[in-house]
Amino acid sequence: MSNPDLFSRLRTDCHDEWNAYVNHSFVEQLAAGTLPEACFRHYLLQDYVFLIHYARAWALACYKADTLDDMRSATSVLQGLIDYEMSLHIKYCQRWGISQAQLEQTPEANANMAYTRYVLERGMAGDALDLLVALAPCVMGYAEIGRERMAHPATRLEGNPYRDWLEMYADPEMQQLATSVAAQMQRLAEQRMGTGRFAGLRTTFSAATRLEIGFWDMGLNPDS
Amino acid sequence: MSNPDLFSRLRTDCHDEWNAYVNHSFVEQLAAGTLPEACFRHYLLQDYVFLIHYARAWALACYKADTLDDMRSATSVLQGLIDYEMSLHIKYCQRWGISQAQLEQTPEANANMAYTRYVLERGMAGDALDLLVALAPCVMGYAEIGRERMAHPATRLEGNPYRDWLEMYADPEMQQLATSVAAQMQRLAEQRMGTGRFAGLRTTFSAATRLEIGFWDMGLNPDS
Amino acid sequence: MSNPDLFSRLRTDCHDEWNAYVNHSFVEQLAAGTLPEACFRHYLLQDYVFLIHYARAWALACYKADTLDDMRSATSVLQGLIDYEMSLHIKYCQRWGISQAQLEQTPEANANMAYTRYVLERGMAGDALDLLVALAPCVMGYAEIGRERMAHPATRLEGNPYRDWLEMYADPEMQQLATSVAAQMQRLAEQRMGTGRFAGLRTTFSAATRLEIGFWDMGLNPDS
Amino acid sequence: MSNPDLFSRLRTDCHDEWNAYVNHSFVEQLAAGTLPEACFRHYLLQDYVFLIHYARAWALACYKADTLDDMRSATSVLQGLIDYEMSLHIKYCQRWGISQAQLEQTPEANANMAYTRYVLERGMAGDALDLLVALAPCVMGYAEIGRERMAHPATRLEGNPYRDWLEMYADPEMQQLATSVAAQMQRLAEQRMGTGRFAGLRTTFSAATRLEIGFWDMGLNPDS
Repeated sequence: MSNPDLFSRLRTDCHDEWNAYVNHSFVEQLAAGTLPEACFRHYLLQDYVFLIHYARAWALACYKADTLDDMRSATSVLQGLIDYEMSLHIKYCQRWGISQAQLEQTPEANANMAYTRYVLERGMAGDALDLLVALAPCVMGYAEIGRERMAHPATRLEGNPYRDWLEMYADPEMQQLATSVAAQMQRLAEQRMGTGRFAGLRTTFSAATRLEIGFWDMGLNPDS
Repeated sequence: MSNPDLFSRLRTDCHDEWNAYVNHSFVEQLAAGTLPEACFRHYLLQDYVFLIHYARAWALACYKADTLDDMRSATSVLQGLIDYEMSLHIKYCQRWGISQAQLEQTPEANANMAYTRYVLERGMAGDALDLLVALAPCVMGYAEIGRERMAHPATRLEGNPYRDWLEMYADPEMQQLATSVAAQMQRLAEQRMGTGRFAGLRTTFSAATRLEIGFWDMGLNPDS
Repeated sequence: MSNPDLFSRLRTDCHDEWNAYVNHSFVEQLAAGTLPEACFRHYLLQDYVFLIHYARAWALACYKADTLDDMRSATSVLQGLIDYEMSLHIKYCQRWGISQAQLEQTPEANANMAYTRYVLERGMAGDALDLLVALAPCVMGYAEIGRERMAHPATRLEGNPYRDWLEMYADPEMQQLATSVAAQMQRLAEQRMGTGRFAGLRTTFSAATRLEIGFWDMGLNPDS
Repeated sequence: MSNPDLFSRLRTDCHDEWNAYVNHSFVEQLAAGTLPEACFRHYLLQDYVFLIHYARAWALACYKADTLDDMRSATSVLQGLIDYEMSLHIKYCQRWGISQAQLEQTPEANANMAYTRYVLERGMAGDALDLLVALAPCVMGYAEIGRERMAHPATRLEGNPYRDWLEMYADPEMQQLATSVAAQMQRLAEQRMGTGRFAGLRTTFSAATRLEIGFWDMGLNPDS
């Protein structure tokens, strides 16, 4: 097969951005349990708005799918987000003293808009592969962050107020989603990736990763 | 409220197309149990392809939604189609001697493409209201056909091979969907319908209704 | 290079549809000068509406372009349509006794909607290559029809009321557009066509060709 | 008429963001001739990438237009950008020692992506009015900045290296474009703005204005 593991290739090729993203200071402080709570709360508020546009991206993936199987996968992620993860997020935020009303009134930060609109617009202008590649830093990155930080020697589990956040992304279900999205990307690459397309996909992956970095930066600046 | 019942207004204003659609010869023959089976089988095959693009339209409605509530409604319809109605259709077709393989290999008829692509493209070019108005002849029309034909004196129930088809669309769940889509259209109209917009929505509704007529015409011509 | 001439490959692979399209009875009668004038007038009226959506497709091609060069090409076609060809069509129609007011009030025929919305929707759901492949039967087909019919022994030039129509599509500028769109398709294929994509592009090309056949059928039925 | 001057209403209602945008420190320093050249060069580089996506937004406006007149206006802006303004920008940059090759290799800054993708995605998800409202801070804001700064007592014209930039946006043609886009927005509002829609349009206008502020912030930080 001519396109061996597109995601691994993108991740390797965008090594610098990827490292800056998955090992961002926000992540390190979170894993060490030293992240100021104001930062985490700001992140949680913005993440609520993020989830809405992330769900829209999966609706778009369903609309753009070439096969019924891909429609099914996208619908399953979308439904999981709408029916389950959004409520979970609301409940989780309540434990951090954030009410649903606060979540619903959160003004969207620029860095938040930047990432989701980039993904949605790239997906709309391009095809389902462009969309998945733009989504990959989120799906695969968060799974990697959860998995690696749970196993990382510098991670403090005992008494770490952010432990359940790490556990959520280390969860087998999240790992499974990342694996299945990578496989779907690979199948799409076999269809839709000619010899000259890698450069364009790399540009998308790099941009999306840098916008994820921007999201963590925003997390560290509660006034942004 | 300034836009009293947009759907009723459209239905009344497009009286001729609407009647030609809901009282189409295909419908009358189906209700009388006299429709040639070849026509119904042709319809069932095309309806399978239709369902795929109809599901895509609800994915688009979710992407285009202005509110989380509208995202939820659209996701619920989409998931119902993908997880439930498509399997139901496959099982139903088996009782008519049509295998899943046949369904999956059905070449899409022009009249089928015409309707679904019109709806999807109108929705993409316009907003969520344009999309719902283009979908309305399908959602509300089938519910009306099911409801009215079940109550119609000319309908033959006993021994009618198409009885369960009529019952399916007369079902309270389908009626409920039609009612809730009409309400959603109405809410969107309050937001997005200025004094000059009715004419454009009427054009969309009329075109979509004529394309539904084309779908029935196709049903009567199994070679189309 | 691994994708030798995508357009030729599609045209060869969809031999039957393509022949039925470029040698359609409407075309033969037009070239022989025997086409009933009512058919041609019906065609001209619908073609006016067609041009609007065809222009929209080139606007979409500009939006979807990966490179500034492709944006430039699409903008150039779009501007030619909007600033020049639409006025030309209006003037041409006046010579056939059709006023601009009549053109603007033409109700769009189902077969007309079917083709343009299919193209637009395929382009929106897919990428720029899907869009161009859906447009190809129109761009390349009309150029081929003009070129071949002008050279065909059965074509009557003297006294043929449709001669200037044939000449318009045989014109070097139309031939040049067809050549340049084929080249653009080829460049996009090198980028965006993996080993498994041909089948999907073939489906699009075949469907669009069949919808073009539907357009000629409509021309032969002035009441459609 | 029920929607008196939508643009003025939005501008008034988003007074704080608007002022922070049109009177941004970048603008004041530029008008005073005190802006560090590195900031201006950074801005010029990013503005080149901006122009590409801005042109795509007008292609989208053409695709989304409800009328041939609106298609014409959008095509005219698009063609002006592609055939004229981009070359003008390239020439202008050469005078600042920036080569075309440098422009073409500019990595797009996050704040740049944020604004254009927000506009494009808002336009795609919504209708032509949502798109124009998202574009308005750019079209009307730059015209206002040019016009007001040229007349402002604090503006230094003599020896100001940025004088021609101000003159370009104060130019009658730019003023005319702003006026005509405001009029088009108003016409669309009459069609597509129901009693409940202002809040949503305000959200869009406010977000786009804040993203324009982010663009100026980026200009002041050449390393961003």
